[in-house]
Amino acid sequence: MKKEILNKIVNSIFKKYGMSKEHSQISTNALINAELVGAYGHGLTRLKMYCDRISKKLINPKPKIRIKKISQSISHVDANNSIGFVAADIAIKKAILNAKKTGIGMVAVKNSGHYGLSGYYAEQAVKKKLITMIYTNAPPAVAPHGSLKSLFGTNPICFGCPTGTKIPFILDTSISMINRGKIRVAARNNHKIPEGVALDKFGKITTDAKKALKGVQLPIAGFRGSGLAWMVDILSGVLTGGNHAGRVKDPFDDFSGPQNIGHLFITFKTDLFVKNYNTRIKDNIKTIKRLPKIKGIKEIVYPGQNKYNRFKMNSKKEIKISDTVKKDLEILQN
Amino acid sequence: MKKEILNKIVNSIFKKYGMSKEHSQISTNALINAELVGAYGHGLTRLKMYCDRISKKLINPKPKIRIKKISQSISHVDANNSIGFVAADIAIKKAILNAKKTGIGMVAVKNSGHYGLSGYYAEQAVKKKLITMIYTNAPPAVAPHGSLKSLFGTNPICFGCPTGTKIPFILDTSISMINRGKIRVAARNNHKIPEGVALDKFGKITTDAKKALKGVQLPIAGFRGSGLAWMVDILSGVLTGGNHAGRVKDPFDDFSGPQNIGHLFITFKTDLFVKNYNTRIKDNIKTIKRLPKIKGIKEIVYPGQNKYNRFKMNSKKEIKISDTVKKDLEILQN
Repeated sequence: MKKEILNKIVNSIFKKYGMSKEHSQISTNALINAELVGAYGHGLTRLKMYCDRISKKLINPKPKIRIKKISQSISHVDANNSIGFVAADIAIKKAILNAKKTGIGMVAVKNSGHYGLSGYYAEQAVKKKLITMIYTNAPPAVAPHGSLKSLFGTNPICFGCPTGTKIPFILDTSISMINRGKIRVAARNNHKIPEGVALDKFGKITTDAKKALKGVQLPIAGFRGSGLAWMVDILSGVLTGGNHAGRVKDPFDDFSGPQNIGHLFITFKTDLFVKNYNTRIKDNIKTIKRLPKIKGIKEIVYPGQNKYNRFKMNSKKEIKISDTVKKDLEILQN
Repeated sequence: MKKEILNKIVNSIFKKYGMSKEHSQISTNALINAELVGAYGHGLTRLKMYCDRISKKLINPKPKIRIKKISQSISHVDANNSIGFVAADIAIKKAILNAKKTGIGMVAVKNSGHYGLSGYYAEQAVKKKLITMIYTNAPPAVAPHGSLKSLFGTNPICFGCPTGTKIPFILDTSISMINRGKIRVAARNNHKIPEGVALDKFGKITTDAKKALKGVQLPIAGFRGSGLAWMVDILSGVLTGGNHAGRVKDPFDDFSGPQNIGHLFITFKTDLFVKNYNTRIKDNIKTIKRLPKIKGIKEIVYPGQNKYNRFKMNSKKEIKISDTVKKDLEILQN
């Protein structure tokens, strides 16, 4: 389907569900971007879920979002159960403003929801020549080290910085061996998942995506990955006033209340300590790219490079839509 | 050996090598702390190296450390090739002051050296009721994903926060499968290292510590760990004015110049966004500790807990000293 047509359809659906023109557009852009970068688990497969949650009054389509000034650098956003895209968009823009004013910005968000890809917001900051670090928690998916039960979300760690070129450095890595969205897509399409990334609900290794969704995802690097997930839960949940300790609700399965996800956005200028940041980062990347490569590797790529190239390539083509999503779009339009 | 006696000996050695009383004590405390928490790779095995570098004028025992104010929150430290312990001690104290004043502190350091354990500085901030994030780069040890050659250091990611109890949450995790210090200790004592954590210089998996030191350490989680290491190199090197892109010299092997390591310290208050942080973090930890456990696991521990307990236990005992270190101490005293 053509991007422009899809844009109109998704926009009209969000508006039908009560969202303002502006909020519809923000949310539509985020969903279509996820499709274009190939992060299908954060794309249109989620549209019906968002609409369902609006119908059940768990996402507020007309939120009164309050931004509280803590200092020139620091702000606190109460998202009033808005869709996550809108809360994150407001927060990153505020974090950018704060950093431009004072050198460093920090914005915490509470009462938000799933906002898609952290890297999408990181890109906004990097385009404004800022470095950024972004944290969000998510519904239980990963078992703390030593435990048999999921509690941490896939809790991504996101870092972005300008590279002196048009392709930003965007590291956006969940601390689970596999992205929960990918398991969900595999489950919907009856595909298998790789071995060693998830356990079923009995604690056994499984390659069945549906069983994995009911079981436990494994963190990267054992105790270390578990510690990183815990850090993200503290930064985005405990600190911000959002839900934490496994209380973020699964948006697909749990309609007992709003998600109240928390996010934390940190932004700062590249030239705080050096005048020649651009020269330095270009030199850094060039030096690393010149290293001898493992057989079969053509190029050492930095985080974000492949995603950027996928986006470029996919932007020229029509967006492929699965039958499931096609059905969702039909239902939601009527 | 008794802690007090060791303290006197190490102190007298540092002073003999030209360091002030204050700088000797800071450095001695850091080395003995590493022994007490069981991080032997950051402990007394390094003492001779520090002294050698002072003799060769690569560490400045009488540095003129300048602290430049960038804003109320942000400072830049030029450590003038001081021993890393002293630079880091000044920087974390400044970061604490900045955060106490404005809510958030950020201090970058350049022209520094190996400072031991990031967690040691994180503890200082946490004792002052702050959350902290600390980054430092290090000599090449880990190959970027796709490359055959080491370039990233073991580049630790460190996060600390108050827990509402006397045992702080301190995550201090290198992004390599194994700590380089541990390989070094294994090499000195002719012990083997685990399989799958390092390659020899030909790119083959090895359990020989000496071969591993000449080869490549593997990052955690492949591309993800490599990306995290790259992030740390940018935050602590490119941003700060320190060396980066593999140019931090190995302190044991490379006497061609000072290390010029960079560090970044970020600190902020726990009560910026919530009034009941202590209640929230206690609830968070308690909830996670109550999860059902894997067979054989008695307690789910948070990062820093084991280290704290080791410290407590070891503080009551004499410090065990290897023959190699004993010999070093004798040589350095005369």
